[in-house]
Formats: sequence, C-alpha cells, structure tokens
Amino acid sequence: MEANITLIKGDGIGPEIVNEAVKVLDRIASLYGHKFNYNEVLMGGCSIDEYGIPLTDEAVKTAKAADAVLLGAVGGNTDTSPWYKLPPEKRPEAGLLKIRKELGLYANIRPAILFDELRHSCPLKESTGEKGFDFVIFRELTGGLYFGERSTTVVEGKRKAVDTLVYTEDEIERVARRAFEAAQGRRKEVCSVDKANVLDSSRLWRQVVAEVAKDFPEVKLTNMLVDNCAMQLIANPAQFDVILTENMFGDILSDEASMVTGSLGMLPSASLGEGRFGLYEPSHGSAPDIAGKDKANPIATIMSSAMLLRYSFGLSKEAESIEDAVKSVLKEGYRTGDIFSEGKTLIGCKEMGDRIADKI
Amino acid sequence: MEANITLIKGDGIGPEIVNEAVKVLDRIASLYGHKFNYNEVLMGGCSIDEYGIPLTDEAVKTAKAADAVLLGAVGGNTDTSPWYKLPPEKRPEAGLLKIRKELGLYANIRPAILFDELRHSCPLKESTGEKGFDFVIFRELTGGLYFGERSTTVVEGKRKAVDTLVYTEDEIERVARRAFEAAQGRRKEVCSVDKANVLDSSRLWRQVVAEVAKDFPEVKLTNMLVDNCAMQLIANPAQFDVILTENMFGDILSDEASMVTGSLGMLPSASLGEGRFGLYEPSHGSAPDIAGKDKANPIATIMSSAMLLRYSFGLSKEAESIEDAVKSVLKEGYRTGDIFSEGKTLIGCKEMGDRIADKI
Ligand SMILES: CC(C)[C@H](C(=O)O)[C@@H](O)C(=O)O
Ligand SMILES: CC(C)[C@H](C(=O)O)[C@@H](O)C(=O)O
Repeated sequence: MEANITLIKGDGIGPEIVNEAVKVLDRIASLYGHKFNYNEVLMGGCSIDEYGIPLTDEAVKTAKAADAVLLGAVGGNTDTSPWYKLPPEKRPEAGLLKIRKELGLYANIRPAILFDELRHSCPLKESTGEKGFDFVIFRELTGGLYFGERSTTVVEGKRKAVDTLVYTEDEIERVARRAFEAAQGRRKEVCSVDKANVLDSSRLWRQVVAEVAKDFPEVKLTNMLVDNCAMQLIANPAQFDVILTENMFGDILSDEASMVTGSLGMLPSASLGEGRFGLYEPSHGSAPDIAGKDKANPIATIMSSAMLLRYSFGLSKEAESIEDAVKSVLKEGYRTGDIFSEGKTLIGCKEMGDRIADKI
Repeated sequence: MEANITLIKGDGIGPEIVNEAVKVLDRIASLYGHKFNYNEVLMGGCSIDEYGIPLTDEAVKTAKAADAVLLGAVGGNTDTSPWYKLPPEKRPEAGLLKIRKELGLYANIRPAILFDELRHSCPLKESTGEKGFDFVIFRELTGGLYFGERSTTVVEGKRKAVDTLVYTEDEIERVARRAFEAAQGRRKEVCSVDKANVLDSSRLWRQVVAEVAKDFPEVKLTNMLVDNCAMQLIANPAQFDVILTENMFGDILSDEASMVTGSLGMLPSASLGEGRFGLYEPSHGSAPDIAGKDKANPIATIMSSAMLLRYSFGLSKEAESIEDAVKSVLKEGYRTGDIFSEGKTLIGCKEMGDRIADKI
C-alpha cells in the first residue's frame, strides 16, 4: 500500500527517537512492498521558536491531510526553558491539546505491559508485579476538565478560578465503544473507572458505559472508583484487561500504570478519532536533559509506529514483525541506559534503531 | 484536662475499631489524669436505617459542640447493600461529605509511613520502597470538584453532565499554611501537586502556594504535576516530606500512597478546620465483608486517636505513648489478619486493642 505519514518530531529527544522509528518503517516498506511518504510539521517548543505559537493552523491542516501522524515528544525543562515564561495557551503542551482537539482524537490507548525481558525493572515485588500483567488503558482525550470552560476572576478582591468538567453522552459512548471492541479481541473484560460517589459526570459516565455494554454481551463490565483504582494498579495489576476512563483520571492512572511496568521507555500510545486516522507517540516525555546525546530509548516510538501500522493501516503482520524484532533485540541483551542492568550490553539510540530494523 | 469527644462509629467494622480506640483513650485518661467524655452520633448507613438520611442536622450539631470527633468508617457493599439504591445525595458517603463541609474541615492530613516492622508488606522492591519513607499528604477537603455546582441535563435529546472545580485564594491559602507549618516541624520540604499545564484552578493554586511559601523562608517549595506525582510515589516515595494538593488529586494520591506503604490498616488521618477542632478517622474503609467477626485491624483508628490527642488537645506526650505502644506490640510479633505474615502471632481486633492499651 501507499500511505502518507506526518512526522512531528517535536522537542528534546523527539527528533532522534522519531528518526529511529522512520528507519524501522522504511525497513517494513521495503520488505513488504509498501510506500510510506513522510512530511514534517513543527509542534511544541520548536514551533514557538519558529512561529511564536506551539502549533500553527497550517501544521494542523497538513496533519489532517495525512493518513496518520507519528509524534516524538514536546516540551522542555519547565524551570529553565523560556517557553515556560509564556502564558499557558502559548506553551509547548498547548500544541498537544490543540492537535488532539482539532484532529478529533478522542480515544487515547496506552498499553501497560510487563516485558518478560525487563522484569527486573518493575518496581513491584515478585509476589505482586512479577507474575506479569498486560492491560490497556482507554482514556477519553477530548473532553472533561481539559476542554471545559475556565476562568480566573477577582471577586470582592479575591482571586477565584473555575474549571468545568463536562461530558455529553455521545462523548462517553464513542470512547466506551472503542474500549469494548478492544476487549472483545482480548480477555473480554472492561473496568470502567470513575468517581460516581461524588461527580455527576461520573454518574452519567457509568450509565452510558452500562448502555454500551449491552451491545457487547460477551464482555464483562465492572466499575471501580478512581481512588481504589490508584491502589489496585499497585496491589494487583494483573487483574486488569481493559481500563476505560475519562480524561483527567486517565492522565493520572496511565502514568501510574506505566511506572508500575518499570519500562516507561518501552510504552507506545495511540490517539484515535473517527475512522482509521490516528496519532501515535511514546508514553514518555521529551527528556530534554539527554536530548541530542544518542542516549534516548527509541523503543516506545518504534512500538508506536507498530501501533500506527496496525490501527491506521490495518497492517497487523507488519506490526507484529516490529514487535517481534524489539523482543529479539532485548533478548540478545541490548539495552539503552534507561533499561540497562548488570550483564547487559549498553547501546545508544541509533544502534538500538539499527538493530531492531535489521531484525525485521 | 477534661474534653468532649463525639464518636461516630459508622458502618461495617466501624464500631469494633472505634471501641478499641476508646479503650486506648481511656487508658491514657486514667494514666495521665485526664477526663474524656464521649457522646455518640450516627452517620452513614446506620443513620439511613434509623433516620432515612446519612447525617442529621442534630448529629452535626452534636459533633460541632464537641472538642473533637473520632470516626470509624461509613458505607457498605456498593453492589449488594440497599443503601446504594438510594439517590447519591442520600447514600452513606454523602454523610461524610456533609460533615466535612458543615464542620469546616478543610485540611485532610494523611501520613504515609513505612513501618519498620511491616516492611515485608510493602509492595515495592527493596531497592525502591524498602529504604524507608515517611511523608504526609495535606489534601484540601472542602473545595474543588467535590463541592462545586453540578448538573445533569438533556440538551437536544442528549444527556450532558457538568461538575465544576472552583477554588478561591482563601481556600488555597489556609490549607497551604497548614502544610508549611507541618513542614517546619519536619524535613522542611513542601511538594505542591497540581495540573498547572491544563487547569486555571491549578495555576491559581500554584500562585497562592508560592505566596504562602514567602512566609516560610526555611521551607523549600517544589511543584509537581499530578501525573508525574502518581509515578514518583512508586518510583521514589522517599523523596517526599509534605505533599500539598487539592481535593480530587488528594483523594487519588493519598490512596495510592497508602497502598505503597502496604499497610492501609495502620494509617490514620486527621481532618482539621479552624482552631483545634478536628475529625479523626482511619484511612481505610468499612470492610463490610469482615464486620463483626473480630478480624479488623484497629491500629489505624488507634493511631487516629493519637493524632486527635496531639492536634486537638495538644497532648503530644500522650500521643507518643500510644504510637510507641503500637510499635512494641508489633515488635512482639502480634498481627491482625491484614498484616499477618509467616512466623507472627495472629490475633483479633479486641486482643490487639487490649495489648496496645496494656503497653501504654
Ligand atoms: C502535557 C499534558 C498536557 C498531557 C496531558 O495531560 O494530557 C500529558 O501529560 C499526556 O498525558 O499526554
Ligand atoms: C467516600 C468518598 C466520598 C471519600 C472521598 O472521595 O473523599 C473517600 O474516598 C475519602 O477519601 O475519604
């Protein structure tokens, strides 16, 4: 097939990790007879430096016209970078929020997997974590507190700030449907996470999710409160198959889950909208401290490109061959610094990309 | 001294654990020459059964008139208990929210401590968790999403739910001040947790906390995003001294932190308002499955009574003698089921209370 991919390399380690993913995609293209055309747009700090804003409308248009987007990471050091002297709506992360909304990417999918080869870096004791786990979080990405109205005013001489958490049934339904569809191809369990003992939006969430569940009779639905889920991710991560939750809870829980795996540098993510279009990015950030030093771990981005092939292009076989290549390189003992341990071979970002591409 | 304590035994294991704490308080009273007068009010499911609502105004009035409140736990099994067939504002937990608001308990304090004697139950590997940690979370308790306006409406045939997250500078300031005061008596570090890259309320939070920090020049203030904090609690809990955060983030992070300690049954909490008045309760829930079986761990409630003596009555020596008694009983190897391990002596709730009282 022929397809167009927009690359958003972004800031920090973004460019180096995206380059390695492109290396891998090119290898797939030549082996399987596909043609991937790339174009590049700026987002985040690099866009601020060039255009004064973190994402131009032109860039959005380019990304929209592509079949999929591969993103590195955006943002810099919040204490030292001049980007963080700007008002919030002009900072690098605002570009990320804008592209999610403009491209209608309402479902953020983040797998949390304990890689066999990396069990030693799981922070949980053998008795809990190391029996293994493999679940995926579906986070609603274009609603809730992130996109409700907000204001800061002065009332009777005192500052007051308001954010609003809004959900409509349609917003809940479409992401829930995606989660149930995914569960059908997995262990057939959806755990919907909310704070229904306090929030109206959570009570609506729970209702609508239960309605969607009726269309998936073979999938088992359970509900869990967000505070309990924050505990259960540590106590017994193996209990989860698909976790479904709203935007802010998903932000917190998916980061917690990725730390529980102990291999943040390995975890991809996909943000999907209607149809097959999607944006793919590593779960980790831009790591400005190690940028440009060939020290970054490109695996999360390479795994994101596998998700891109699977979800946006329907190329499951190709996606699997990337994932298998990653596993064999790990099995051979090659590690970047973040996942290095005694007795393994330390390599850089480029060499990791090369070795994975070679294995395919 | 003479003082009045309102007991709210609540539901599930509530009555048994409060009884053991009272046993310990009585022992303190007789040894140190104090007089504690108790009265009792209903809250939660037991109040629903008696009065049809989870907390009567009469009960609020009684609690308000006391010098401090000791609470067991409220709520039942959400799947099977008839209390959860009621509309949300009539369920057991609504009583808890009402008493917090009515008594002005704006600062919830939850220590997260790795007890030396219970290191084996910490879910983190030796390399991370077991170097030990001892931090405390200050959670704002009467603002934010919990108490903002909410509504569920039907707009153009579609359901829509809205919750509002509101903070005023006064609400932020008073809880921040408490956190800084506590830090001054500890390792002098406050980590304020927010989502300032997205929320207006978090940006105001960060501003006001920075202003309060000026009054505490010897305390070091850092800011952390909530998603990162959810990771750091697992990656390196030892880095924290005092964590300060808003209501919903505090709900999630404090439960996560208590799971990280591995000894939820040990952790007390205090909810303070203006002056010395406070409500004290274990961090854990009502555990309806083991209620009435003499299996509950009363230690969190007993430790809560120690906090009560310290914060509301200024009786630090007495508080310490309770805490020391708990430690010695653990050192002698006595354990309730939740913290039991090979080679220790399994005892019930009552015997645990007796042994702790005896040690004082
Ligand atoms: C950068 C930030 C706005 C973003 C979010 O909160 O969604 C990030 O934490 C993420 O999870 O992708
Ligand atoms: C029962 C519930 C309303 C409550 C809360 O969310 O505050 C509980 O989780 C807590 O932390 O005390």
